[in-house]
Amino acid sequence: MQIIDGKKIAADIKVEICGEVEQLTATGRRRPQLVAIIVGEDGASQAYVAGKEKACGECGFKSQVLRFAESATEAELLAAIARLNADSEVDGFIVQLPLPQHISEQRVIEAIDPKKDVDGFHPVNVGRMTIGLPAYVSATPAGIKELLRRYSIATSGKRCAVLGRSNIVGRPLMNLLSQKGTPGDCTVTICHSRTRSIKEICRSADIIVAALGQPEFLTADMVASGAVVIDVGTTRVPAADAKSGFRLKGDVKFDEVAPKCSYITPVPGGVGPMTIVSLMKNTLKAYKKEVYG
Amino acid sequence: MQIIDGKKIAADIKVEICGEVEQLTATGRRRPQLVAIIVGEDGASQAYVAGKEKACGECGFKSQVLRFAESATEAELLAAIARLNADSEVDGFIVQLPLPQHISEQRVIEAIDPKKDVDGFHPVNVGRMTIGLPAYVSATPAGIKELLRRYSIATSGKRCAVLGRSNIVGRPLMNLLSQKGTPGDCTVTICHSRTRSIKEICRSADIIVAALGQPEFLTADMVASGAVVIDVGTTRVPAADAKSGFRLKGDVKFDEVAPKCSYITPVPGGVGPMTIVSLMKNTLKAYKKEVYG
Repeated sequence: MQIIDGKKIAADIKVEICGEVEQLTATGRRRPQLVAIIVGEDGASQAYVAGKEKACGECGFKSQVLRFAESATEAELLAAIARLNADSEVDGFIVQLPLPQHISEQRVIEAIDPKKDVDGFHPVNVGRMTIGLPAYVSATPAGIKELLRRYSIATSGKRCAVLGRSNIVGRPLMNLLSQKGTPGDCTVTICHSRTRSIKEICRSADIIVAALGQPEFLTADMVASGAVVIDVGTTRVPAADAKSGFRLKGDVKFDEVAPKCSYITPVPGGVGPMTIVSLMKNTLKAYKKEVYG
Repeated sequence: MQIIDGKKIAADIKVEICGEVEQLTATGRRRPQLVAIIVGEDGASQAYVAGKEKACGECGFKSQVLRFAESATEAELLAAIARLNADSEVDGFIVQLPLPQHISEQRVIEAIDPKKDVDGFHPVNVGRMTIGLPAYVSATPAGIKELLRRYSIATSGKRCAVLGRSNIVGRPLMNLLSQKGTPGDCTVTICHSRTRSIKEICRSADIIVAALGQPEFLTADMVASGAVVIDVGTTRVPAADAKSGFRLKGDVKFDEVAPKCSYITPVPGGVGPMTIVSLMKNTLKAYKKEVYG
């Protein structure tokens, strides 16, 4: 059994990106720039955005955070997006979700120029990803593909159970892993709240991606010996002894599942660290105009 | 065992559409208009476009075919698309595929205004369909959903094997049938050329959609008793006794599979007739501005 060290891979990738940025800017060219928009004071959102700023620094990117009050209007946000779309020194930008109730997330996402949509949430990027064209792939699915690639995990012809059909994890993964390519060519089954035989489906899977957001959902009796288990769950569970007052729990009962696996991602330190570097990779792609030319 | 009569359902829908069009135009409003662009002399393409024109007539639509020589340039085609995008009396239009080698199909598809892309091939429509937003869904998957709806076939929690991962049938169906809704909420497994245990996957499926383009691929030993079988295959097989010199063969060995099924679509007369009416429905939606407002 091998533990997939997302933290190490993420650190490796940041070093690679940083090296590439140094090369690209050695002749005086400006650095890649990522901008984050954040609305309101949600603690988790603040932490995510801070993490993204930190990663930008580590990658040699310029970064900027545009902060809006909880009471900001949709029009104000759309105006800021229009400015970023037009700013030739901004390669990519993200709007940290969730947004306050009075703002339409979908309208905001669709206002972003697909060429700068490094979160990959715009329908154009989702559509291109779905049909296998170059696209910005959203952070978590892209990070999982990268882990599979870096650990040379065989996927072709493998049965893969994706637990959860969310638009940001389960659904894009189902599309990506069932496409031609490496990693790819999996026979994917997508499971969700209406799925009846989830235990049986998991037991016949070579690869299980758990993205339900249900702490410790996947237990040892659901996993075949030798399976690859990717845990996307990051539920905050109150923990009196933790400094932050909570602890991150994955969707996998790690202690009992891990011994049966060929590979498994821990929580924290598995998929989590990969999401931010996926965003960095997309920003570098935007800078290099790799997706849309 | 019940044979799903796509021909009858398609006829019913055309009558419904026609009735709605008569109502909508009773006060003197113009009729919906679908335009088809065809390049070259491919026999099958000519037949498809003729079928679409005929259906437009039956639905009370105005229709127009723009014919280009095989030697037409991409620029000429793009100019025609720009004109149709701008023409307020054209609700929707399609470019009949395949196109000659010297023209980029993707560039052509992406030039179509998504609001008029009644074939549903533009990445914006694919993306919106994937994440469950209102969208033009391409004809075959939309037609299959309609058959399931009209026959009140239960789908929630059912295991569904989709054979084939093409961007125009298998992949959109996987996305649609795994989404919330009716029909929907299926536990979908997508199978393709790299899938190893296809027989086992089919045998454990409540619903099988065969869209591989391999005549008579699905045999009785692959189907559980009581399954619903949807046959998307339409391979032209030479037949000396047929007037046209060929006969359409489905992906299902109908004679031996049908007796085991609860529902099955025949070929021809199953999914086929539904594809054209799906295009008609999308055109009516475009006229009523139902998708994009």
